[in-house]
Amino acid sequence: MPEWRDIDDLPKNAANHTALTPLWFLERAATVHPTRKSLVHGSLTYTWRQTYQRCRRLASALSKRSIGPGSTVATIAPNVPVIYEAHFGIPMSGAVVNTVNIRLNAPTIAFLLVHSSSAIVIVDQEFFTLAEEALKIIEEKSKGKFKPPLLIVVADESCDPRSLRYALSKGAIEYEKFLESGDPEFAWEPPEDEWQSIALGYTSGTTASPKGVVLSHRGAYVMSLSGALIWGMNEGAVYLWTLPMFHCNGWCYTWTLAALSGTSICLRQVTAKGVYSSIAKYGVTHFCAAPVVLNTIVNASPEDTILPLPHVVDVMTAGAAPPPSVLLEMTKKGFRVTHTYGLSETYGPSTVCAWKPEWDSLPPDAQARLKARQGVRYIGLEGLEVINTQNDQPVPADGKTVGEIVMRGNAVMKGYLKNPKANEETFANGWFHSGDLGVKHPDGYIEIKDRSKDIIISGGENISSVEIENYLYSHPAILEASVVARPDERWGESPCAFVTLKPGVDKSDERRLAEDIMKFCRSKMPAYWVPKSVVFGPLPKTATGKIQKHVLRAKAKEIGPVKKSKL
Amino acid sequence: MPEWRDIDDLPKNAANHTALTPLWFLERAATVHPTRKSLVHGSLTYTWRQTYQRCRRLASALSKRSIGPGSTVATIAPNVPVIYEAHFGIPMSGAVVNTVNIRLNAPTIAFLLVHSSSAIVIVDQEFFTLAEEALKIIEEKSKGKFKPPLLIVVADESCDPRSLRYALSKGAIEYEKFLESGDPEFAWEPPEDEWQSIALGYTSGTTASPKGVVLSHRGAYVMSLSGALIWGMNEGAVYLWTLPMFHCNGWCYTWTLAALSGTSICLRQVTAKGVYSSIAKYGVTHFCAAPVVLNTIVNASPEDTILPLPHVVDVMTAGAAPPPSVLLEMTKKGFRVTHTYGLSETYGPSTVCAWKPEWDSLPPDAQARLKARQGVRYIGLEGLEVINTQNDQPVPADGKTVGEIVMRGNAVMKGYLKNPKANEETFANGWFHSGDLGVKHPDGYIEIKDRSKDIIISGGENISSVEIENYLYSHPAILEASVVARPDERWGESPCAFVTLKPGVDKSDERRLAEDIMKFCRSKMPAYWVPKSVVFGPLPKTATGKIQKHVLRAKAKEIGPVKKSKL
Repeated sequence: MPEWRDIDDLPKNAANHTALTPLWFLERAATVHPTRKSLVHGSLTYTWRQTYQRCRRLASALSKRSIGPGSTVATIAPNVPVIYEAHFGIPMSGAVVNTVNIRLNAPTIAFLLVHSSSAIVIVDQEFFTLAEEALKIIEEKSKGKFKPPLLIVVADESCDPRSLRYALSKGAIEYEKFLESGDPEFAWEPPEDEWQSIALGYTSGTTASPKGVVLSHRGAYVMSLSGALIWGMNEGAVYLWTLPMFHCNGWCYTWTLAALSGTSICLRQVTAKGVYSSIAKYGVTHFCAAPVVLNTIVNASPEDTILPLPHVVDVMTAGAAPPPSVLLEMTKKGFRVTHTYGLSETYGPSTVCAWKPEWDSLPPDAQARLKARQGVRYIGLEGLEVINTQNDQPVPADGKTVGEIVMRGNAVMKGYLKNPKANEETFANGWFHSGDLGVKHPDGYIEIKDRSKDIIISGGENISSVEIENYLYSHPAILEASVVARPDERWGESPCAFVTLKPGVDKSDERRLAEDIMKFCRSKMPAYWVPKSVVFGPLPKTATGKIQKHVLRAKAKEIGPVKKSKL
Repeated sequence: MPEWRDIDDLPKNAANHTALTPLWFLERAATVHPTRKSLVHGSLTYTWRQTYQRCRRLASALSKRSIGPGSTVATIAPNVPVIYEAHFGIPMSGAVVNTVNIRLNAPTIAFLLVHSSSAIVIVDQEFFTLAEEALKIIEEKSKGKFKPPLLIVVADESCDPRSLRYALSKGAIEYEKFLESGDPEFAWEPPEDEWQSIALGYTSGTTASPKGVVLSHRGAYVMSLSGALIWGMNEGAVYLWTLPMFHCNGWCYTWTLAALSGTSICLRQVTAKGVYSSIAKYGVTHFCAAPVVLNTIVNASPEDTILPLPHVVDVMTAGAAPPPSVLLEMTKKGFRVTHTYGLSETYGPSTVCAWKPEWDSLPPDAQARLKARQGVRYIGLEGLEVINTQNDQPVPADGKTVGEIVMRGNAVMKGYLKNPKANEETFANGWFHSGDLGVKHPDGYIEIKDRSKDIIISGGENISSVEIENYLYSHPAILEASVVARPDERWGESPCAFVTLKPGVDKSDERRLAEDIMKFCRSKMPAYWVPKSVVFGPLPKTATGKIQKHVLRAKAKEIGPVKKSKL
């Protein structure tokens, strides 16, 4: 009967097909658990009914300002309630939420705001002057061609009141006032098409220009549910915001928490004391953290520590695995660490080192070695492979042959904004190319071996060594430059520069020269990009003249880790 | 900037858009937990690696028989491994799995097989003669116009070996032999379009003809993940199959278990002893059961009971809420009961009486009253409303005003197979019309008040009173007939017939007449449809001549419940 197709001929209609979007999660949480805490920030607490009303107000107020499908609204904020609300309120107006990394400098932010055509910027009072500076640059550079975005400032009682007064004196609209202009019963509309964009986030990536990663409602829906399933995170979870929400939308846990009617505990600044006291005070069940944060937790002073933990706390970490000693110490203290891996381009983590009960009986170092692997695909990521980039064929699953990690499926971004060339490269041959190099083990688990050559991960943030090199090359004394990761006791890794000097440069005082270069860098780039050390001397090269970064990485390792005292 | 649309112009491609389908869950389970038990059936145990290979073999063997997209393959089987495999192996060939209710009679099965154009029937050895009988009816009726399906018989060591020998003597192919003809490395393809049909299931519903409910890969994906989230069912769950897999695909838990790499414990026959011993032996964490099964568990004799439970066991029940006394007893024994509601047309349960921690402190009867409600929408069901059928407007959320329960979203079926008229009615005005009548409480929870007039729910199965009435009307002595639900100690409800006799019929021996009518019914319909009592006398009617079923229901209740001893 293969010729009979009737069974597939039933059409979609308004009753049986709805765009997938995480926005419905919020409506559901407000219906099912209206009085449960949605957000806690210091003495400020919201319920799910309030959060839904506030998000509808935000969507309504934005609509009144002609924001809708095709618009972009930016946030510059740490983990405070407003950035959570932005993840719902902005898309409920039809617009795209663009969460700006608060560690960027004004010129980069100016670039992002123009590139994304952000019409409005919602900025935390602490970062108002940064936004103001960015807007000044836009005005100067665009010469009136780009209408500078409207600034909305968010008050926070934990900040210096002067910064709020300053912002208001400069004509910024106060966020709460803005909300008041919106209707708490606003009849928001889900996207007509689930492929519509929900979020935009810029990654420094491996190339010189920041790239805007565009995510869809569909992908956000699938990945926010996957994030709960992968982690065994259930209804009513209490989640601590150590991971910035501006970082890949908090790995989609912004939306997951609404799906679970869970509670978000905000943390303006991440400290060990803040983590421990939140666990004790609010019964935190889950948090995500870069390895550097785990290090802080493990090495916290006794007065900042509240032990034993009242219950097992689930911790998700991503990217480079924390050192075995840290993992071991975390386990001893009662944390259960899940290791994942992903990129902004995959909605955050999209592979997980899925733990097997039979590994429980292995010796600790064997466990740590297994836990260090990046693992298997999430539900939501339908394809994960390590390929030989020469012929696009999978490498043998031998744990030895290195290839590029590639992905495919609903966990992969729509693409880079206004960047057809990058899209063509990154989506070549039906795969998303991560740029990370790894192996596939006989059991199918992948492991990053030689992490994508260019990326330095410092405190959980990607830094492109190519970008730093480009700046270094603009220094009058520098002939050649190569930047690699150097182990860093506090940040995991930090940039280390190897340079050769131009002929005629006075090389007698290397210390003064190094300081001069670092000062030069500080004027050009975010503080965390600035190399913590500059090493002079000839650069190792291949026969064809390419700099051998793996040799430099070995050298940087030899120098030893950057000590905490240096900071 | 609303005029700027670039951000939504990024196209779908092979790397960032894949059809949603639960089939990938199986591939993932086999990769991540290859040696973990997937299925346990008596002394038979499979691992996820084996299940994946067996399903690939099945898909491959079907492909070799020209089964593919547009084909339908039926199963007639209780909860044994083959019906689990059918949920993956059949769709992996591109075909649709049609799970036939094993309680149906041969004429009904004959109708379903022809209506669904089932090309192959995979039948458990115990049900071979039933399938054979159905095929005979097809041959007789279709006079060669419909090619009778190929029969594949499944051996089960727990069955009488004679039924297998008989099947093989009749030329049926043995299932294991059929699998051997397939390739365990078969390169199955996911559906190109996630709207493609994955499953077909017939419901007696409220009208006279069985209707074929068609479900999509997309819906099955969304609902199998939702089923895990709603229930807090995590990776590695151990699930006991008390709910038939032929019933709405086991409420999608067939697919959920692959997503969670969980373990399925098969139960050929549901008994209290089977439930308790499975919990003790396999560490069952979850099972689904009609209220009638809960009753059996609560009232089990001490020798069939293993108490205290080694851990809390989660139980999901659906439809009419179990009586408060049963709920209370279940809780006392250590079961945690979740009450849900749904229909075949919504992939099984699609609303849940989401429990609130603040209800824990209420007195038991108040808790039972709250738990009896059908609740709020699943994640996956985007719209749930109670409407006034006169004007399609929502009824006030006052807990009093009765309206029709309607649904909308990805949890709603594609439609009824080859039934445009039913589709038009059921999808009128952008809603799926459940046919059930309920109220909406002030807190947004719905509750079925006067269940759809025509449906009798017996042992978790829907029975259409209209269908029984149609048969009764064909009895030579019957003038008028009306069938309603009567409380039944064992099955929850069972049909009770009220009839008036034709003039001239000898009414002196009502007992003999009643027995004659029941005998007549047994020859026409499944055993569980046969009215357990026949009441003679004039039928109450409205002014316009419609039979007042609510009066009859009250009468049936007055008669009192059908006692267990009657069975």
